[in-house]
Amino acid sequence: MRDINIAMFGLGNIGSGVMKILSENKDMISNRYNIDFIISGILVRDINKRRDIDIDKSLLTDRVEKLISDKRVSVVIEVLGGVNPAREYILMALKAGKTVVTANKEVLARHWQEFHEAAKDSGAGLYYEASVAGGIPIIKVLNQSMQANSITEIMGIINGTTNYILTNMSEAEKDFEEALEEAQKLGYAEPDPTADISGLDAMYKLSIMSTLAFHAKVPIDNIYREGLTHLTKEDIRYGKELGYTIKLLAIAKKKGNVIEARVHPSFIQKNHPLAAVREAYNAVFINGDRVGNLMLYGRGAGDMPTGSSIISDLITACQNECKQEYTTFANRDKSLSMVEFNDNWYSGFFIRMTVKDNPGVLSSIAGIFGKFGVSIESVIQKGHGADTATLIFVTHKALENSIKGAISEINMMDDITKVENIIRVEV
Amino acid sequence: MRDINIAMFGLGNIGSGVMKILSENKDMISNRYNIDFIISGILVRDINKRRDIDIDKSLLTDRVEKLISDKRVSVVIEVLGGVNPAREYILMALKAGKTVVTANKEVLARHWQEFHEAAKDSGAGLYYEASVAGGIPIIKVLNQSMQANSITEIMGIINGTTNYILTNMSEAEKDFEEALEEAQKLGYAEPDPTADISGLDAMYKLSIMSTLAFHAKVPIDNIYREGLTHLTKEDIRYGKELGYTIKLLAIAKKKGNVIEARVHPSFIQKNHPLAAVREAYNAVFINGDRVGNLMLYGRGAGDMPTGSSIISDLITACQNECKQEYTTFANRDKSLSMVEFNDNWYSGFFIRMTVKDNPGVLSSIAGIFGKFGVSIESVIQKGHGADTATLIFVTHKALENSIKGAISEINMMDDITKVENIIRVEV
Repeated sequence: MRDINIAMFGLGNIGSGVMKILSENKDMISNRYNIDFIISGILVRDINKRRDIDIDKSLLTDRVEKLISDKRVSVVIEVLGGVNPAREYILMALKAGKTVVTANKEVLARHWQEFHEAAKDSGAGLYYEASVAGGIPIIKVLNQSMQANSITEIMGIINGTTNYILTNMSEAEKDFEEALEEAQKLGYAEPDPTADISGLDAMYKLSIMSTLAFHAKVPIDNIYREGLTHLTKEDIRYGKELGYTIKLLAIAKKKGNVIEARVHPSFIQKNHPLAAVREAYNAVFINGDRVGNLMLYGRGAGDMPTGSSIISDLITACQNECKQEYTTFANRDKSLSMVEFNDNWYSGFFIRMTVKDNPGVLSSIAGIFGKFGVSIESVIQKGHGADTATLIFVTHKALENSIKGAISEINMMDDITKVENIIRVEV
Repeated sequence: MRDINIAMFGLGNIGSGVMKILSENKDMISNRYNIDFIISGILVRDINKRRDIDIDKSLLTDRVEKLISDKRVSVVIEVLGGVNPAREYILMALKAGKTVVTANKEVLARHWQEFHEAAKDSGAGLYYEASVAGGIPIIKVLNQSMQANSITEIMGIINGTTNYILTNMSEAEKDFEEALEEAQKLGYAEPDPTADISGLDAMYKLSIMSTLAFHAKVPIDNIYREGLTHLTKEDIRYGKELGYTIKLLAIAKKKGNVIEARVHPSFIQKNHPLAAVREAYNAVFINGDRVGNLMLYGRGAGDMPTGSSIISDLITACQNECKQEYTTFANRDKSLSMVEFNDNWYSGFFIRMTVKDNPGVLSSIAGIFGKFGVSIESVIQKGHGADTATLIFVTHKALENSIKGAISEINMMDDITKVENIIRVEV
């Protein structure tokens, strides 16, 4: 039996979950892997705060140096979240030769390169399965099962909060505000939901996933991002009529050396496997040149699924003698330096507008779309006979810039009251 | 750059696929992993046979000893299929200290223990990702991502041939024979389809998967098996009316130390994620005490997806210096020796029977079910007014033995013409 001493940085929801699994599944884990995990210390901001978890108070400290200088500690579990002070503490640990297991997508997406170099210098390991999609083992699958593949596409539902909200908006026909409030009440959304509903959280995760998938760094600055606050139940209902389900998708595609990466609400066909991913569940679709389509589906958040991934990393790290288990982007494909990012990609578009109900309006609008090379798949008109009517266009695959051009010209027409909403359609 | 010399045992469809990937993705693989794979020799039965693949004839040999004694060779890829001579050749390779990567589910399910011991003795590695579900990385996920979990259930569609046939029977309302012929014409079924349609292939795979999931050996002799030749388009159509989709499921459940494992056709609710797995696709559902529900979906057969898994194993083996990457069942949970197998499990049942159209028949049958403690969820009667009528019962969860008892008593009734078919319903 090997004793492995661990320091925890943070004791929130995820940290408590890790403690719970290590205690409840202790015998099972030590029987299977001949390892006994010993918590040597836990970094918290306030030692005297009341906590739901039953914990030996002598383990708690507010001094990171105490844990870093503890020679027994070989692995640090970082579940602080956010960039500060997580970045500094992770670097301290790596430089001290301690392997880091983190669930922190933001700090990893922003400072991966720096961590990678610190780990390489000291020989420590850096593990981050829990940073993307909770209990779904997407990091290991990308790193250790797709080696023979050139991956051309990765597409996922990787934010449980927004998927819960969108499922509720779609199935119970609720407004965004109402669905958000409900999600907050049930603990699916934070009191400050910004990072989720603005797509930031999904952007961090997409940066990590696509960097691994493409063997080339996909920085967050190169990811287009659009949140979901502008979605209305009307749009979602009209989309449903047309056979679509609404999702917040994180999409990255690679064609030669050109990468596009984007997070935004998307309509997808209701028979697409991702359309069936409801509530707080996550799923990731991969397309590889050898493996074809592959999908992983599971619980993308919560203390137990995320804890499952953290402890998996922990055991893998120990089996690798706490060394780095795989190289990362920094020394992979030679074509790395030649990557270009594209922000004028193709997709379908759902466009809802209010127009004056005059004869000839549809024809004029269709003419403008045609001029910009945008081909229309379907049009629905609602409310004919009143002063104004609603027109909904769904386009075939079109370029972002062509749509922008067409919409700005349409906006100048006298008969247009308002272009109400534009939602991409993944085709 | 490291040179790794490989011997291939077999050059059929899968073997040729491996050669193709190694040649077409050669630069990508060596750039990423600093490894050059060199094929040192290929074992075939007939050196002079015409082959579709362009191959250096000097690599071919019909003498296994030549490859085993080749000191340059550190890894053997075994794609012969079947037990003989694969078993003997794998053992020869392992005893000679050569790591074996195999796609051969039958030989692994039957002789795993023996291979494990030979590998342990010589220090060679044994890798078998390709043996289950083609390109889906289910073996790595079970071994390397579920360590923190006690897995209670694994359920999958793990035979592409039968799923193709059942999709066709269900969606195009074809008879079994017709759907089989079509699958054969399109290359989805072998000229001799026995191993697939009898459930043997799925049984081997379930034995491997459930052994890893439960950390306890699940021998094929302890797996109940039923093929799909008795399914008719009538049953499938009636099932659809009731909201079910037909699948050949491989199911294993563990409760305490009691395991049940079974391969048989099953109706599942049409909104179950597995119901959407069509044609030759595979999917595996896992339930773990920490991770919750997890599903992997992808292409379960074919030269490219299976080749993708073989080459992934190959690279992993090289990164592990061709050593065993993980322990297997033989030295895992201490509770191993205490496992019991249960063959009297619970499920729902769909029972179709032809009866004489006399008043009181339904009441008598319902009485017999009641006597055996079987509760009825729904009954449909078809063809009332003719001499005979069709009755379809769907039961709530009931024990296998209770159903057997009830059916044998029902069969003795004067008014029963025939119990036409019994199909389990997974609830």
